[in-house]
Amino acid sequence: MEATRQAARALDAADPLACLRERFVLPDGVIYLDGNSLGALPAAVPGRLGSVVTGQWGQDLVRARNTDGWWTAPERIGDRISALIGAAAGQTVAGDSTSVQLFNAVTASARARSGRSVILTEAGQFPTDGYVCDSVARLLGREAARVSDPVAALRDRGPDVAVLVWSVVDFRTGELWDVAGLTAAAHEAGALVVWDLSHAAGAVPLHLDADQVDLAVGCTYKYLSGGPGSPAFLYVARRHQDGLDQPLTGWHGHARPFAMEPGYAPAPGIARARIGTPPMLSLLALDAALDAFEGVSLDAIRAKSLQLGEFFLSCADSLLAGLGFSVITPRAPERRGSHVTLRHPGAHPLMAALIEAGVIGDVRPPDLLRFGFNALYTSYADVYAAVERLRDVVTSGRFRDPRFAVRQAVT
Amino acid sequence: MEATRQAARALDAADPLACLRERFVLPDGVIYLDGNSLGALPAAVPGRLGSVVTGQWGQDLVRARNTDGWWTAPERIGDRISALIGAAAGQTVAGDSTSVQLFNAVTASARARSGRSVILTEAGQFPTDGYVCDSVARLLGREAARVSDPVAALRDRGPDVAVLVWSVVDFRTGELWDVAGLTAAAHEAGALVVWDLSHAAGAVPLHLDADQVDLAVGCTYKYLSGGPGSPAFLYVARRHQDGLDQPLTGWHGHARPFAMEPGYAPAPGIARARIGTPPMLSLLALDAALDAFEGVSLDAIRAKSLQLGEFFLSCADSLLAGLGFSVITPRAPERRGSHVTLRHPGAHPLMAALIEAGVIGDVRPPDLLRFGFNALYTSYADVYAAVERLRDVVTSGRFRDPRFAVRQAVT
Repeated sequence: MEATRQAARALDAADPLACLRERFVLPDGVIYLDGNSLGALPAAVPGRLGSVVTGQWGQDLVRARNTDGWWTAPERIGDRISALIGAAAGQTVAGDSTSVQLFNAVTASARARSGRSVILTEAGQFPTDGYVCDSVARLLGREAARVSDPVAALRDRGPDVAVLVWSVVDFRTGELWDVAGLTAAAHEAGALVVWDLSHAAGAVPLHLDADQVDLAVGCTYKYLSGGPGSPAFLYVARRHQDGLDQPLTGWHGHARPFAMEPGYAPAPGIARARIGTPPMLSLLALDAALDAFEGVSLDAIRAKSLQLGEFFLSCADSLLAGLGFSVITPRAPERRGSHVTLRHPGAHPLMAALIEAGVIGDVRPPDLLRFGFNALYTSYADVYAAVERLRDVVTSGRFRDPRFAVRQAVT
Repeated sequence: MEATRQAARALDAADPLACLRERFVLPDGVIYLDGNSLGALPAAVPGRLGSVVTGQWGQDLVRARNTDGWWTAPERIGDRISALIGAAAGQTVAGDSTSVQLFNAVTASARARSGRSVILTEAGQFPTDGYVCDSVARLLGREAARVSDPVAALRDRGPDVAVLVWSVVDFRTGELWDVAGLTAAAHEAGALVVWDLSHAAGAVPLHLDADQVDLAVGCTYKYLSGGPGSPAFLYVARRHQDGLDQPLTGWHGHARPFAMEPGYAPAPGIARARIGTPPMLSLLALDAALDAFEGVSLDAIRAKSLQLGEFFLSCADSLLAGLGFSVITPRAPERRGSHVTLRHPGAHPLMAALIEAGVIGDVRPPDLLRFGFNALYTSYADVYAAVERLRDVVTSGRFRDPRFAVRQAVT
C-alpha cells in the first residue's frame, strides 16, 4: 500500500462506506482517532434525546414506562446489539456498566461450574476484568488465575477451570483473539466462557451463537458510539438463561416486578439478567446512536477498518521510520482488531502535542499511543494526515515543549 | 384544616414556595402526584443536556473527561446530594442503580462486622432491598432476617447483627422511621446501619452526619427529579471510607485508574466507592435537575410537604367518606414521609380511571393508591382537585368501565 496523500484520496474515492460519515457530527478541524475510547456523536442523537426529555419525561411522565416503551427498552436495545454481535434476539440486555455486567456474568458462570476452583483470565487485560475476577474469586472461594497463553492454561489446568474470562480484542495491543477456537478449547475442558467484547462490538464481526459462546459483556461507548458512559450489555446464550444464578438480584430481573413480592423469583428468558432501574436517558441515546449501523454490514465495516489499519501501518512504516516508533499491534489482518498501537518512549508528550495539532488519539501506560479506526466515520485522508502530523510533531521537536511534559492525570 | 377549594386557594396564596413551580415543566391539564415515583422535568434540564450532547460529546469528544469535568462528576454531583441529606462533602458518589449501590453497601458493611451472622432488614420493604440482602447473605454465608420491629430485633439478636438495612420512608405506607434513634440502637448493639433514602431524599430533611449514619443509598429520580432511571448514590461516612471493602471493584474506584495496574488498589476517600464508567448523559441531567433545589431549604420543603399531606388527608376525610377508602399512612407529622397512601379494593381500576381524568398517582399491590407531594411543584389546588376527581370517579361509577378492569402489567 502506497503511503501518500494521493493514495489516500484514491482509497476514499473507492470507499463504499464514505457516505456514512454524514451519520455523525464531527468537529471541524479535528481528526478523531479515539473512537475506540469514546465514539463520535451520531447525528440522530441530539434530536431523539431532546424529544425523550421534553416529550416523554416532560409530558408523558411516569406513563412513559408503558406508552413510550421505557420498561422494555433494555431487552429491545439488547436485541439491536444482538444483531451486531451474531446473536439471535432474546439473549442480550443493555444496562449498567461493563464492570457490573462482568461481575454478574463471572459470578453466575463460576456458580454454574461449582466443582471447579479456577477463574482463568488474562494477564495484561483491561483492569476492571482482572479486578472483578479477583473479587468474584474471593466471594466464591475460588482462585483467579492470570495467564498469557489460555490454550496452554486450559491444557494444564483444564479440569479445574470453571470459566475462562477473555477479551476479544486486547485494549493495549489491539490483538484479536480467536473466539471460536478459544471457546471450543474451554468447552473441551468443561469450562464456560465469558467474552469481553468491549473493543470488538461494532468493529469486528462476531458470531456468538455460531461460536457457542456462553456469556459475553461489552461496552457501547467505543465503536457503537452510544455516548459517554452509555450502558453496557450482557449476552446470555439461551441455553444458559434458565439456570442463570446472578448475584445482582434487582427488582427489574424479577418474574413479576410490579407484584413487589418479598422473595426473588427470576424472570424467564433474558429479562432475568436485568438488575435495577436503567439510566433511561443514556439508554435511549444509545438506542438512537445504533441507527448509524442501519443497513450497513459488519463485514463491510470490518473490511474498511482493516484497510484503514493497513494504510496507517504503511504510513507509519514510511513516514515515521527512524523516529523511535515501533508497532506492537499484530500486522496479520486475522490477528488485528480495529486499533493500532505504537510504542514510543515519548508517548505522553507526543500525544499531547498531537492533540494540540488537531489529531486525537490516546495513550496507555507506559509508552503506548493508540489510534482507533471507526470505519463509519474515518477516512483514509484522516489517517494520512494523522501520521503526517505525528511526524511533524516529532521532527519539529515541538513535543519537547514544557507544556506537554506534564502527564495529565486523566487521558 | 378546611377541605374546600377556597381553603386551597388561601393556602396557595400564602405558600412561600409557590414560585418554584416555574423551575419545572409540567404538562397542561395534568395534576401530577407521582413525583415519588418519577419526578417532573426540571426546566434547566433540556438546555443543559442539549449542550452536553452537542457541545461536550459532539465537539470536545474524549477530551471532555478533563475539560468538561466528566471524570470528577460522580464526586461533584455526590457533593451536591450530600448537601441535601445532611452530610459534609466528600462522602457521597453518584452512579449506578440503587440495587447496585445497595449490593456494594450491604456487602461492605457485613464484611466490616465479620464475626456477626445476621443482616437485619425489613419485612415489607421495597423488593430490591430484600433481594439484595438475601444475595449478600448467601455470598458471605450470613443470614438475612426480615423483621417488622427493628428495635425488638436488635434487642433480641443484637450481638449477632452485622448490619441493619432499613428504609427511611416506607415505599408503601409512607411511614417515616426515626433515623437517629434506630441508628443509635444499631450502634448500641455493635451493628452498622445502611439506610435506604430513596423515598426521603429531597423531601425530608436528613442529618446523616449528625445522626452518625454509617452508609446510605438512595435513588435520585423521585423527589430529586433527576430523570428516568437517573443514577443512584452511595454515602459512606468518612470514618468508614478507608476500610470500605466493596465487592464491585471497577477501575473507576482505583487509586490510579489510568495507570491500568493489574491489582486493585482502592482510591483514598469516597472515590473508592466508584465502580465503572458512569452513564454521563443521565448523570449530567441529574446535575442540571439539582439546580431546582438552589436556595431552597429542606426545612421549607418539609413544612410544605407535610401541609400538602395534611390537606390531602382533610380532603380525603371529607370528600371520600363512606366510599370505601381507608388511610394507611400514619397521620402524625413526625411519622409521615411525603406521600399518602389510601387503601381501596378497587385500587387498580380507580387509578386507571383517575389517570384518564388527568390526575396521576400510582398503585402498589394489592390495593393501595399512592399520592406523592413534591413541594417544589405541587399546589394545594392540585391536591383539592385530585381528591375531588377521585370522588367523582368513584361516585360516577366510571371506574367500573371495562377498559379500566384490565390491570396493567406495568404501572
